[in-house]
Amino acid sequence: MTGRDGKGSLAIMMRGRFITLEGGEGAGKSTQRAAIASALRQVGLKVLETREPGGSPGAEEIRELIVRGDPGRWDRETEALLVFAARRDHLQRLILPALEQGQWVVCDRFSDSTFAYQGYGRGVEVESLRELHRFCAGDLLPDLTFLLDLPVEAGLARAAHRGGAERFEALGLDFHERVRKGFLLLAAQEPERFVLINASLPPEEVTQAVLKQLEQRLGLTL
Amino acid sequence: MTGRDGKGSLAIMMRGRFITLEGGEGAGKSTQRAAIASALRQVGLKVLETREPGGSPGAEEIRELIVRGDPGRWDRETEALLVFAARRDHLQRLILPALEQGQWVVCDRFSDSTFAYQGYGRGVEVESLRELHRFCAGDLLPDLTFLLDLPVEAGLARAAHRGGAERFEALGLDFHERVRKGFLLLAAQEPERFVLINASLPPEEVTQAVLKQLEQRLGLTL
Repeated sequence: MTGRDGKGSLAIMMRGRFITLEGGEGAGKSTQRAAIASALRQVGLKVLETREPGGSPGAEEIRELIVRGDPGRWDRETEALLVFAARRDHLQRLILPALEQGQWVVCDRFSDSTFAYQGYGRGVEVESLRELHRFCAGDLLPDLTFLLDLPVEAGLARAAHRGGAERFEALGLDFHERVRKGFLLLAAQEPERFVLINASLPPEEVTQAVLKQLEQRLGLTL
Repeated sequence: MTGRDGKGSLAIMMRGRFITLEGGEGAGKSTQRAAIASALRQVGLKVLETREPGGSPGAEEIRELIVRGDPGRWDRETEALLVFAARRDHLQRLILPALEQGQWVVCDRFSDSTFAYQGYGRGVEVESLRELHRFCAGDLLPDLTFLLDLPVEAGLARAAHRGGAERFEALGLDFHERVRKGFLLLAAQEPERFVLINASLPPEEVTQAVLKQLEQRLGLTL
């Protein structure tokens, strides 16, 4: 019956929300992540910004294994297992503790990227990847997912402009088309969780659309 | 209709066998692995000796993540995902190509160790680990598995004697008892695949028992 018990219950009631950004290369995920975090902080919410693969110290070490070397270094199933190992660590060590403390978590990529890239892109059965997701995360899903969609060529051109896109370009346009269609299919399957955003517009217009949807979907006044 | 086609078919018909050694710390797996490999080579078979976690260059890098640092570094599910990522690489890059070339593969630890350690030992649901095995290996199982069984205290004393057992000792006797019982349960569930060996006997007597079973189970004259 101490204050401590009271605080504990309160913390559970005030669990933070989990917001993810998804989309192909060059879609503007990190720009919009920063805009969302900034808007949430302005209304007094505590926000954790993070990204995958990586995010926690252990997951960053696994990320190094995933992104280092050429794209054919791991077969698609090995890559999927490594991605989910990193995700499990990220969830356990960073995301879940933050949510339980009432923080809002804004994350650049999560399991939908694995379904799109390793599943629709590289050809691993998506249902098998959903089983791995359940092993890794139970029934946890983001409260809200922004899919920043734009044509593959436009995204790759943007990614090439900022450098570091060689690894993905090497996979070919067909691959990226499959990934884009995969994301659109995932969004169509879960319209209550996904918000589809036209990321071809100028960044400030994309931000306006994102923040408007954030207010509507989560009942905020930003 | 060239010789090459003929050889290809022959190679498939002469696919090698996959033999694994399982058991707790200090059970003598590497000693018996060497004895099996030596006996098989003496009758003219090509043998690949390997061990998990690790075995291929990629899997060895993942192994480093698994065994480095203290035992609580990864939670049990993350550890299981890393182990299966390493196993997938080991299978794809080393074990399957060797079997397809007609080599016999003798491997120190495989999926049964994951069922025993992460499952029965650390408490991950064994059925979930079997699903990960299927994602990683399809329906591949060893042709023959030797379970080298001995009391936990005796095994840990042997492992301590050779050094490097701190990581496992830190997990406590209860943990190792659960692992031992888990192995015995796995062996009881698949008597046609498992050979239970009393590893408390002197090494040369264990080798005699192992080679005798190897002859009987796989129809060899060693």
